[in-house]
Amino acid sequence: MVAPGSVAIIAGGGAFPLEVADAARAAGREVTVIGLRGFADKLLRRFPYVGVDMLDPGGMIAALRQCAPSCVVLAGAVTRPGPLAIGSVFSAYRNREDLARILSAGDDRLLRGVVDLIEEAGFTVAGAQEIAPSVLAPEGVIGAVALKEAAIADVERGRALLAAMGPWDVGQAVVVSSGRVLAVEGPEGTDATLARVVDLQRRKRVKLDGQGGVLVKIPKPGQDVRIDLPAIGPRTVEKVRAAGLSGIAVKAGGVVLVDRAEIVRAADKAGLFLMGFA
Amino acid sequence: MVAPGSVAIIAGGGAFPLEVADAARAAGREVTVIGLRGFADKLLRRFPYVGVDMLDPGGMIAALRQCAPSCVVLAGAVTRPGPLAIGSVFSAYRNREDLARILSAGDDRLLRGVVDLIEEAGFTVAGAQEIAPSVLAPEGVIGAVALKEAAIADVERGRALLAAMGPWDVGQAVVVSSGRVLAVEGPEGTDATLARVVDLQRRKRVKLDGQGGVLVKIPKPGQDVRIDLPAIGPRTVEKVRAAGLSGIAVKAGGVVLVDRAEIVRAADKAGLFLMGFA
Repeated sequence: MVAPGSVAIIAGGGAFPLEVADAARAAGREVTVIGLRGFADKLLRRFPYVGVDMLDPGGMIAALRQCAPSCVVLAGAVTRPGPLAIGSVFSAYRNREDLARILSAGDDRLLRGVVDLIEEAGFTVAGAQEIAPSVLAPEGVIGAVALKEAAIADVERGRALLAAMGPWDVGQAVVVSSGRVLAVEGPEGTDATLARVVDLQRRKRVKLDGQGGVLVKIPKPGQDVRIDLPAIGPRTVEKVRAAGLSGIAVKAGGVVLVDRAEIVRAADKAGLFLMGFA
Repeated sequence: MVAPGSVAIIAGGGAFPLEVADAARAAGREVTVIGLRGFADKLLRRFPYVGVDMLDPGGMIAALRQCAPSCVVLAGAVTRPGPLAIGSVFSAYRNREDLARILSAGDDRLLRGVVDLIEEAGFTVAGAQEIAPSVLAPEGVIGAVALKEAAIADVERGRALLAAMGPWDVGQAVVVSSGRVLAVEGPEGTDATLARVVDLQRRKRVKLDGQGGVLVKIPKPGQDVRIDLPAIGPRTVEKVRAAGLSGIAVKAGGVVLVDRAEIVRAADKAGLFLMGFA
């Protein structure tokens, strides 16, 4: 938990920044939103709001200096700007080297570069879950659907495998079906991993038995939870359903449920279990 | 090593069945080839040859009874027949239940079903490497290209990860680049795993540094090496090159080099190392 005080939320797209902002305000914090143009939702303007361009790190730092928060939180989805967007604004902005440094890395390192810049400017970066712990998955069954016996065994197997892979910094998630590991997530992310499970069945490489299978997700040991906390959202539920699995198990207190109400509604409707393990 | 004596090779496609047949004959075995129509290469007709349809398990067993081999070896690639092919021949053949049992499984279990049938008919099924050990990767650097320091470290890391995952029966192969695990192979196979590494770079999720990365491949503990010995071929080399990796390391004595001369030629030409580890 970070020290109480004001927070600046650098907000990308999706429902998550608003959840974090609401939770921070409910916890008595003063909230300023620094919205990334083209990503941040209009609803965020309920909070003191400054719009910045994600290709203008100098502008982002200037905005932070203006509101001087106790801590800075990054929340919400961003995608790499297209080459056209980069080309057309590159020359117009300050901190050209900073920008070049950030953009030259793979997507997986983009946010890491942003965090470095913010810290070099003297601010403290915190994880969304530190100022809004309620966004994290709780322990136990979360939706209306209970786990069947086969699912309990598959969750156990997935947890054990993820733990064994821990030292290699791979695999935030695995898919296990009747004891068999169908996919280990790499840098491609959970959505792509689930798409692979769909594909394996479509190409008849694998046939699930009647028990389905489970998605098990944890934070990697050593993961920088300020920028890359594992998360699931309504889309994850949809993809788990499409893959013919029976539900989702996540590390309680270690995985963010983005738009929890909608996740639970979708899981219940699809007959999928949703649970947090200790 | 299986007892000396005659061998029947049930041959699918590709160069591998011929390599096995030649090696078995060179070792003094009497060889009969039972070629799967549409898959087995014409060159195999240099050996006593019977053609069978892969949708006719009864015919396959009858052919085996005729030559009464000391052991049966499955070699070469087969793909699942299309629904049209299945529909048009299904009613014409004997052993309809056997066929249905085989075809109802995923591709990953197809050959398992064939092995079961052959064993139930009283034959001994052996691995290709048992009658033709020369098809297996030897220890040490195989081609003309030596490993750089970064590659040695990546191979070590990949081996250790594969060993740690052993108890979960996942991952015949992993891709490691500068210490980072880019992909863990699941039931999709090595080609698809390498394609994922290409895709990660194309979508800028990952950027390889100048050192490239390595493909590390082993047999899974408990793998039935009679039907599913891990293999690499010239196509693997091409995909490793396309993924921007620097080479391939396999378990010596545990991975088949299909068409070794061509593999080595392709690897040398592409500047990729190829090695077997103890």
